[in-house]
Amino acid sequence: MKIYLPFLGKTREKYLAAGIDDFANRLKHFVQFDCPVLKDKKKSAKDSPERLKDEEARLLLQNISSAATIVALDPSGSQLSSDGFAELISKWENQGVKEVAFLIGGPLGLADEIIRKADLVLSLSQMTFTHEMARMLVFEQLYRAYTIKAGTGYHK
Amino acid sequence: MKIYLPFLGKTREKYLAAGIDDFANRLKHFVQFDCPVLKDKKKSAKDSPERLKDEEARLLLQNISSAATIVALDPSGSQLSSDGFAELISKWENQGVKEVAFLIGGPLGLADEIIRKADLVLSLSQMTFTHEMARMLVFEQLYRAYTIKAGTGYHK
Repeated sequence: MKIYLPFLGKTREKYLAAGIDDFANRLKHFVQFDCPVLKDKKKSAKDSPERLKDEEARLLLQNISSAATIVALDPSGSQLSSDGFAELISKWENQGVKEVAFLIGGPLGLADEIIRKADLVLSLSQMTFTHEMARMLVFEQLYRAYTIKAGTGYHK
Repeated sequence: MKIYLPFLGKTREKYLAAGIDDFANRLKHFVQFDCPVLKDKKKSAKDSPERLKDEEARLLLQNISSAATIVALDPSGSQLSSDGFAELISKWENQGVKEVAFLIGGPLGLADEIIRKADLVLSLSQMTFTHEMARMLVFEQLYRAYTIKAGTGYHK
């Protein structure tokens, strides 16, 4: 199973970029993943939030195969425990899922189209975090899930 | 109102320490806070987890005035939205609360004594994060709460 985790624009906050790198380096021992930085087009003052989100949705969806399982990260979603998330990944593997795409919006959040298309809408917390922080948290939870599945410790 | 946010040992993960510093620098424009690093005593193999947690509880509680409102960060707690957290801070201010202590455990979590003593047990997420990551998230949510209260934007 491959994980696709595209970023809308690069991570500007340096300490979050460092955290993401750290978890990406650890995660690659467990699973194949592709984490491309999709180029945001230059925003213009004319663009409405809805139009920007639609453009972002187009970018996020462009490289996803029709067979992929789509997880949308959105505050409207349901929460899972870390153990529950690890179980879900095992279930996907057992079902022969080839690709899981984790989609994180920009500062405006995800377009409705992605929420509708998603197989799972997942919320990290009732609290609001920046989308860059959500990137690091998703990486951390993926890494944690694979260590839970592997039965290795992760105490940091 | 003063915020007391003691850390059990320094933050070892450099990118998290950088994130905490960043939010601490921004938060100090809004509220007075004290964030001491409490020295963990050297752990010995003889110490049971319960004994270590009790020792940590003693450290965490030693400088808290009896009048302080205590918030324990623990997965067993209830969640708040960021708006709800901002409203709670406003409520404490209106009630004349002098000090709010936010207590985060070490890798083993908080001692039962602290959960019992707490006025509020707050959970950040159903997912498990490291205690060092929880530090950064609490700082981020405090900063977010004060920007919500101030009506200033925070889009990062």
